[in-house]
Amino acid sequence: MSDQSALSRVRVVLTQPSHPGNIGAAARAMKTMGLSSLYLVRPKSFPDSEAYSRASGATDVLDNAVQTDSLTEALTGVTIAAALTSRRRELSLPMQWSRDAAQTLAGRIRTGETVALVFGNETFGLSNEDLALCQLPVMIPANPEYASLNLGAAVQLMCYELRLATLSLGEAPSMTGALATVDEVEQLMQHIERATTATGFFDPANPKRLMPRLRRMFGRIALERDEVNILRGMISFFEKPVTKRRTSTIETGLGQPPEDS
Amino acid sequence: MSDQSALSRVRVVLTQPSHPGNIGAAARAMKTMGLSSLYLVRPKSFPDSEAYSRASGATDVLDNAVQTDSLTEALTGVTIAAALTSRRRELSLPMQWSRDAAQTLAGRIRTGETVALVFGNETFGLSNEDLALCQLPVMIPANPEYASLNLGAAVQLMCYELRLATLSLGEAPSMTGALATVDEVEQLMQHIERATTATGFFDPANPKRLMPRLRRMFGRIALERDEVNILRGMISFFEKPVTKRRTSTIETGLGQPPEDS
Repeated sequence: MSDQSALSRVRVVLTQPSHPGNIGAAARAMKTMGLSSLYLVRPKSFPDSEAYSRASGATDVLDNAVQTDSLTEALTGVTIAAALTSRRRELSLPMQWSRDAAQTLAGRIRTGETVALVFGNETFGLSNEDLALCQLPVMIPANPEYASLNLGAAVQLMCYELRLATLSLGEAPSMTGALATVDEVEQLMQHIERATTATGFFDPANPKRLMPRLRRMFGRIALERDEVNILRGMISFFEKPVTKRRTSTIETGLGQPPEDS
Repeated sequence: MSDQSALSRVRVVLTQPSHPGNIGAAARAMKTMGLSSLYLVRPKSFPDSEAYSRASGATDVLDNAVQTDSLTEALTGVTIAAALTSRRRELSLPMQWSRDAAQTLAGRIRTGETVALVFGNETFGLSNEDLALCQLPVMIPANPEYASLNLGAAVQLMCYELRLATLSLGEAPSMTGALATVDEVEQLMQHIERATTATGFFDPANPKRLMPRLRRMFGRIALERDEVNILRGMISFFEKPVTKRRTSTIETGLGQPPEDS
């Protein structure tokens, strides 16, 4: 099963949404995370231009949305329904935090099941009857003093968690160059020592803590090979007698291996 | 350092936001996750009634927002700034996924530093100049075919990640009753075997796979002690001769230990 088909097995169910704008925001949130299956139980107004406006480029999710009269109908074919709830209720089911719930659902998706994320109305949440149809109550660990998550924001967070739980991300894209090896950095240190000794800034007879401090600093920044070359190029030019320096050293020095390497 | 003061060290910086509604949505998103420090670099319109309307109950975040003329000014006092970016750029810095970046930032917060989450304009993102002021480029692992996260949604996701990375959540609130022990479930199994043998449904001489199937089913649902008692109460009533049964068994049977236990 490919990553994409895994996310196609996640159904987002909005029960009795009041604001068409929130339906559009939910569609956009879903699509940014690779989800596409939206069910609407008795929406107050749908289709609605406000939903399409807020959906931005995710109008296909709205076009394919399924409207039902009941949550039972919206859960046809679903083997586990997670109910988002913002308050503690008298439940006989163990509740899970959003991140743990995403792991639970991802495990079920991997065995080929279709799962649902069920969201209640903006004002009154999920009814007890609807909650009873769901097997997994889920809480987003919001600020207890202000847990007022917007419906679209809650959909965004859960879709993000599902995406991360089902996809293998791999390494973050990065344009970083090859890192310098320890010996290359050590050659730079020796170069600095030689050059600063020549200028009189560094006194080998009374070294104080200059070289350890520089070594510590360069160690922390994980120098790239090109950066070592830039620094050594700069120092090589400083080492030349002032009369022999060229006017522009910038382009020549960048990225070129130092003359004495 | 308490959890709350940890999150007070996270500064959210919106650079040149175009839509006041998004500023309000960002404020609301921040507050739901316990953040409060909002900086606005050259907002197109602020303060604005649209921002206050979308902020819902998070108007205090807007009231305390700091406006600056430059990102440099907004980053005063910050030791590491994470830049949210949706596209790969020619960067010489290693990029991190949102979740890893939250861990990196949480580590810095724990040493008492103030960190920033920097978000670009809704349309053109962050300028290269502003990006150069940030030490940590961050990507939310969105759908590569539709990575169009709303500004408020991006703020919501990052604040959620920071909250989870800095707080210790503990167990999810749960009203679950005490679970039944293995021996209590085994007594239930024996009770079922005895009762179904009496009715003739179960034939001990030809058991087939009834008991293993029931044992497997009950094993999977992690029965609570009260549930075992309800089931045994039900069975006890089934065991009585029909003439001796009371009309209503429901209330009497619920939660009561079975007569023979």
